[in-house]
Amino acid sequence: MREVAIVGIGQTPVREHWDRSLKQLAVDSILSAMADAKVEKVDALYVGNMLSYELAGQENLGAVIADQAGLYDIEVSKIEAACASGAAALRAGIIAVAGGAQEVVVCCGVEKMTDFLTDTVSQGLATAADWEAETLHGVTFCGLNALLMQRYMYEYKVKHEDFAGFVVNAHQNGISNEMAMYRNPITFEQYNKAVEVTAPITLLDSCPICDGSASVVICPLERAKEFTDKPVKITGSSCAYERVAVAARKDILFFEGVYKSAQKAYQQAGRGPKDINIFEPHDAFTIITALSLEACGFAEKGKAVNLAREGKISLGGELPITTMGGLKSRGHPVGGTGIYQVIEVVQQLKGQAGKNQVKDCSVGMTQSIGGAGTVVVTHILEV
Amino acid sequence: MREVAIVGIGQTPVREHWDRSLKQLAVDSILSAMADAKVEKVDALYVGNMLSYELAGQENLGAVIADQAGLYDIEVSKIEAACASGAAALRAGIIAVAGGAQEVVVCCGVEKMTDFLTDTVSQGLATAADWEAETLHGVTFCGLNALLMQRYMYEYKVKHEDFAGFVVNAHQNGISNEMAMYRNPITFEQYNKAVEVTAPITLLDSCPICDGSASVVICPLERAKEFTDKPVKITGSSCAYERVAVAARKDILFFEGVYKSAQKAYQQAGRGPKDINIFEPHDAFTIITALSLEACGFAEKGKAVNLAREGKISLGGELPITTMGGLKSRGHPVGGTGIYQVIEVVQQLKGQAGKNQVKDCSVGMTQSIGGAGTVVVTHILEV
Repeated sequence: MREVAIVGIGQTPVREHWDRSLKQLAVDSILSAMADAKVEKVDALYVGNMLSYELAGQENLGAVIADQAGLYDIEVSKIEAACASGAAALRAGIIAVAGGAQEVVVCCGVEKMTDFLTDTVSQGLATAADWEAETLHGVTFCGLNALLMQRYMYEYKVKHEDFAGFVVNAHQNGISNEMAMYRNPITFEQYNKAVEVTAPITLLDSCPICDGSASVVICPLERAKEFTDKPVKITGSSCAYERVAVAARKDILFFEGVYKSAQKAYQQAGRGPKDINIFEPHDAFTIITALSLEACGFAEKGKAVNLAREGKISLGGELPITTMGGLKSRGHPVGGTGIYQVIEVVQQLKGQAGKNQVKDCSVGMTQSIGGAGTVVVTHILEV
Repeated sequence: MREVAIVGIGQTPVREHWDRSLKQLAVDSILSAMADAKVEKVDALYVGNMLSYELAGQENLGAVIADQAGLYDIEVSKIEAACASGAAALRAGIIAVAGGAQEVVVCCGVEKMTDFLTDTVSQGLATAADWEAETLHGVTFCGLNALLMQRYMYEYKVKHEDFAGFVVNAHQNGISNEMAMYRNPITFEQYNKAVEVTAPITLLDSCPICDGSASVVICPLERAKEFTDKPVKITGSSCAYERVAVAARKDILFFEGVYKSAQKAYQQAGRGPKDINIFEPHDAFTIITALSLEACGFAEKGKAVNLAREGKISLGGELPITTMGGLKSRGHPVGGTGIYQVIEVVQQLKGQAGKNQVKDCSVGMTQSIGGAGTVVVTHILEV
């Protein structure tokens, strides 16, 4: 299989975009990525999206968005993997380019969530859980993650305040990211006083509902120089999953899907946790960040919160995470997030991360999760 | 890229399955296809589905269905391309196997539509059209196809009764197919007396809403003999699309997406219309059958109805179509249909089509369409 490179990136700010439709947001990021790669023509469009059925009355998004973008004579596809949809669309594009089915491809993630009331959006997001075992009985994603966080705190004798570092770090990094939704710092005091949503999860453990789209242009590495002087290689790309219903899992405090997905990506790239210079985890809730760091091999079980406490996840630390704000501060337009993460790592690897630039950064990893740790897409990027 | 073969098939009857959930239907066909291929382990599952968000409260179907089927340690993906979702899932699987990302893969199409009232289902199906230009204004799919049929009849001086042959043929072929939803013959008289739905489309121009799932196991052709004595080669696989909004098209009576998709598949297979022994078109409405036959090169513009009138589409004719009942008689569980079509061609190519067996059948073509001719997936299969 061919090596694959990212040669163009494009993103909209993450906001409440009252004046842009789902289609317009997607087109904005697609055309921006194509302009960045200086391509006028691509061979295929892969779209990642989760909630357009409910929130835009629109399916068939591959064709709908290609049409709106004026991209004709191409192959189109829409991939859905809950909150990992954007990353899954990139993975589909990589498989096609690596295998020879396509040459130059745009992978776009998009979500428009703020036109509806929160309960509608929460119901929509809950379709990523197991309907029969979980959703039917009224559990939301916040509820499922609250159960995980409660158990984590009990099992490892960790306090709620121990998670604060993840949020403080994310918001600190989001300040300089013009694309971020929330560019205000959060103090430890604010975190500890935040209003509870579902105990023990508070408002500040949770990422926001928002609108946004991000796209990348990929091509065979051997052709990357046609489009850019600084291609970024995709050395690892994987998808794995574990039991959907949390109650069906052997150990609810070990994200097996995250573990398997990370291991596959490490193996492909010939890398291990120690080689990763920056990591963009799926920090939709602070407990997910902790469990992801552990299952990826960055911390022992029950110890991930120490990384935050000891400052190891900051821009100057051993393993900077959420370097541009993460899902918490940049925002989590669910189908878009997987590509936002990849773009941010690309910026870091190319030395284009501005005030948030991590020094000596040549290997980065992104991870998107759909469901409560269920389906996991991991990418390792290198220059 | 590697050649790819189908080595196992599985399908549920197309019915109103009051006693089986979406997940159960999918698992039924997956396990049946795996049993047919005598495989206990696969490397990936690609699921095609359109309406599970609305009709089952369930997204994340890749993981959800793999979990229910007891398939762990695999990659999962869900693809949505409106009514072509099943065929698009097969195409995603083919790309992965041909390119080397996967070895043995199950591609599953599934839809469960009959738990809800027809207006909910019609609204759901309408999300395949352009929301802003079409659906918002109240046009359903039946309405869009009625506009096409009306124009076709006006432009080519064709009468409504000229379409009867498509329906009579489909139902005649469905009688012997135990998997078919409607196994009753339809006479020309019945067709001509059928109740109007949206003029000029009548009930008997339209395929039924129903439940069902179909799956195939694919692998590299070079490994096919491990699983079956009679592999079926996939010699052509393509996806193309055209403008979503019907009013935006240059010529609404020429399905450009169908044309492009067919041309790509012909080119890959080194085949042309004359080489195709049987064709499974997307006969959701009789007008779609006519326009598809024309855009695929089987008939000149305005002349497809002649094929039916002259008996050329029957099992003994020059180009047998809907050989196991088609969408009209076998039924159209939308996300499942693309794989049902492929299974039926596999049965024909292997000489396992029973009373419906077409003689000297070695090259078959299937075509699935999402939207009113919008996104089109074509496969050419050969023995």
